[in-house]
Amino acid sequence: MRPLRIAIAGLGTVGAEVFCILSKKQDGLREGLSVKAVSARNASKNRGLDLRGVDWIDNPLDLVTRSDIDVVIEVMGGADDPAYSLIKSALSNKKHVVTANKALLAKHGIELAALAEQNGVNLQYEAAVAGGIPIIKLLREGLSANDISAVYGILNGTCNYILTAMEETGRNYAEILKEAQSLGYAEADPTLDIGGGDAGQKLSLLTALAFGCQPDFSKVDLQGMSDLTLEDISVANELGFRIKSVGVSKLQEEGTLLQMVSPSLLPKSSPMAHVNGVLNAVMVEGSEVGQSFIAGRGAGAGPTASSVVADLIDIARETQIPVFGKKMESLPIRPMVGRDEWEGEFYIRLSVKDQPGVIAEIAPILRDEGISIETLVQKGRSADQPVSVIIMTHETKGENIRQAIQKIAKLESINASPLVMPVLRI
Amino acid sequence: MRPLRIAIAGLGTVGAEVFCILSKKQDGLREGLSVKAVSARNASKNRGLDLRGVDWIDNPLDLVTRSDIDVVIEVMGGADDPAYSLIKSALSNKKHVVTANKALLAKHGIELAALAEQNGVNLQYEAAVAGGIPIIKLLREGLSANDISAVYGILNGTCNYILTAMEETGRNYAEILKEAQSLGYAEADPTLDIGGGDAGQKLSLLTALAFGCQPDFSKVDLQGMSDLTLEDISVANELGFRIKSVGVSKLQEEGTLLQMVSPSLLPKSSPMAHVNGVLNAVMVEGSEVGQSFIAGRGAGAGPTASSVVADLIDIARETQIPVFGKKMESLPIRPMVGRDEWEGEFYIRLSVKDQPGVIAEIAPILRDEGISIETLVQKGRSADQPVSVIIMTHETKGENIRQAIQKIAKLESINASPLVMPVLRI
Repeated sequence: MRPLRIAIAGLGTVGAEVFCILSKKQDGLREGLSVKAVSARNASKNRGLDLRGVDWIDNPLDLVTRSDIDVVIEVMGGADDPAYSLIKSALSNKKHVVTANKALLAKHGIELAALAEQNGVNLQYEAAVAGGIPIIKLLREGLSANDISAVYGILNGTCNYILTAMEETGRNYAEILKEAQSLGYAEADPTLDIGGGDAGQKLSLLTALAFGCQPDFSKVDLQGMSDLTLEDISVANELGFRIKSVGVSKLQEEGTLLQMVSPSLLPKSSPMAHVNGVLNAVMVEGSEVGQSFIAGRGAGAGPTASSVVADLIDIARETQIPVFGKKMESLPIRPMVGRDEWEGEFYIRLSVKDQPGVIAEIAPILRDEGISIETLVQKGRSADQPVSVIIMTHETKGENIRQAIQKIAKLESINASPLVMPVLRI
Repeated sequence: MRPLRIAIAGLGTVGAEVFCILSKKQDGLREGLSVKAVSARNASKNRGLDLRGVDWIDNPLDLVTRSDIDVVIEVMGGADDPAYSLIKSALSNKKHVVTANKALLAKHGIELAALAEQNGVNLQYEAAVAGGIPIIKLLREGLSANDISAVYGILNGTCNYILTAMEETGRNYAEILKEAQSLGYAEADPTLDIGGGDAGQKLSLLTALAFGCQPDFSKVDLQGMSDLTLEDISVANELGFRIKSVGVSKLQEEGTLLQMVSPSLLPKSSPMAHVNGVLNAVMVEGSEVGQSFIAGRGAGAGPTASSVVADLIDIARETQIPVFGKKMESLPIRPMVGRDEWEGEFYIRLSVKDQPGVIAEIAPILRDEGISIETLVQKGRSADQPVSVIIMTHETKGENIRQAIQKIAKLESINASPLVMPVLRI
């Protein structure tokens, strides 16, 4: 193993934990890894770190031109500057880069991968997807002999925490979200988590690795989870399912890639259905291994730092693998589609006025779109309040569901927007 | 990636599948991997492989001296010759070796690892443990930043198939085993699987990787599963557990390593409890990531070949990692202990004569060993047939359980040997 001289840009919880791991009693693996310089916004903050012998640099960009630095760890966050400029100039200066920044990679990954390749250095990002789960390594190396047909992931701990808490406590979405925010599990602005964007950024990176193509976050079809109710969870449960927010990346028969993030119904027999709380999990379907499943902590200082340091050890071991598994020249842009192309069963929840004839209005619309009903449940009866009608369909296409729902939503007897979720039989 | 010229020794189902994967439409990853020579016992057997352009070598030992071979794949099996000599002389001739042979590595791993190191070549064995699950890579690379405290594994597909089938069909052990043999899921001589030896060999390799020490299969404490009955499965189920044959490798407070393979009770809330059929799974507890869980197919041509080819791709990518994660010089022999040192709850099943006073005889023996009873269940009543008494203990030490059981087994009222299983709260 070669010794590495390391700079850490960002000393939040992850940066501080990386520093701690590298400071701990050194064994055969970590003994050559030494932190030479750090940079963070607030130099006077007490982080409980012993920074003696480590240079404090005010401007992170000054880290990358130093001749005594081999690797720059970027744990500042943010899809753009200063993180973007930092990584760019680190690579240009032939420094290896380790980052936990999925937002930045989802946006600038192609450019940065090319830059790393040109300069003959590594750009490692195990920590960017599913924290302590080594899913990047699994796809890029462990399952490299397989033709991958699909990747399914529970990739956002905040969503999964909220869903699990709703299920376990019977308290509603808004209440749990507020609690999660006060506990620090959810951001003050939770849009990126709840809306599926964070999971979508991660999914776009997994897609690139699994299918050997350029990542494209803009093509990930996102559906948030804020419309989910306790009733959805309990009806799904009665029907043998649990609801999870799942990212799906699937190779279609015609060679296109389908990418979507959605609250989804998982059969209780699926290991994915039992991934609770802040855990993350990924299931990969490969030509040789069949289904391969991995679960663990997806966020937090320890798991994220674990992946950052594993990346450092890879660099010290002189492991050289292209950023997205293949050289950029053989990394095509592949056609990508969204949920319109998903084929499977669907869960539909309609909020309807409790009056005779509603089903008679809905049924022909579904029929005309070729959608066949597997189960229809009406919950509650009330003359003045809307009631819920839940429909489980037989296998059909997302596009047909969307068109039917557009028509149904216009019916006079329908209150509120319908909720649609795919059923994932995995 | 460097091109690799490959020899395959052994063309059973795994060797043939490796050949197939390497023959398939080449993409960016596999294009430089070409099979130059093969060797197998029966040259006239039709394996459905197109071997045109590939040299057929009768004596596998002749593969390793050829100057046009970079890597030898050993998929012949067997803990000793000819596989042992083949790998030894391949490494001495500076050929990289990829093997799926856990029995051989458990026996000769230390010697072979040293030989690989001296000759500057790789000895890769992802396929030797848990088939298609990249657990070697996970421990050696993905979780390399962690201090590991424990590894738990469902490592034998035959045992897990039998247990799952007993549970699902209510048919007994002997019947299911016979069926498994006729289906090819179990060997004609199932001792190595059923007795825990196969899982123990794999566990000894995981121990070496997880704890940075030399593997020692002779120190793995083995308990087979042939005494398990349908009653054990159903009582465990009533008490909230499922029974699985689990390999445990755990760092004890005093720095020793505990290794055992046992049928064990797993709480139904554990993901390990839901690993069914021929699947394998491993749970790793690391200082940074907490619990990390991976599951997939543990055997069969596809998964095993997947790992063999992933190892080849690692070699083509010039990945150089010591065989057991660290250089041999820094790989200590660590003190290892067995189930006597395990601390936890236990399940005890006694077969007793249904007569008054039996419990009064047993209870003082347990008390004298400091064992406290959590639950005691007597199943059935019969004047002429023995009945079962099942005891769940509070947390205690394996040594105390063993001593108590030795005394209890001598009681006149006890038929047949008692069965003891640890409860794994993971």
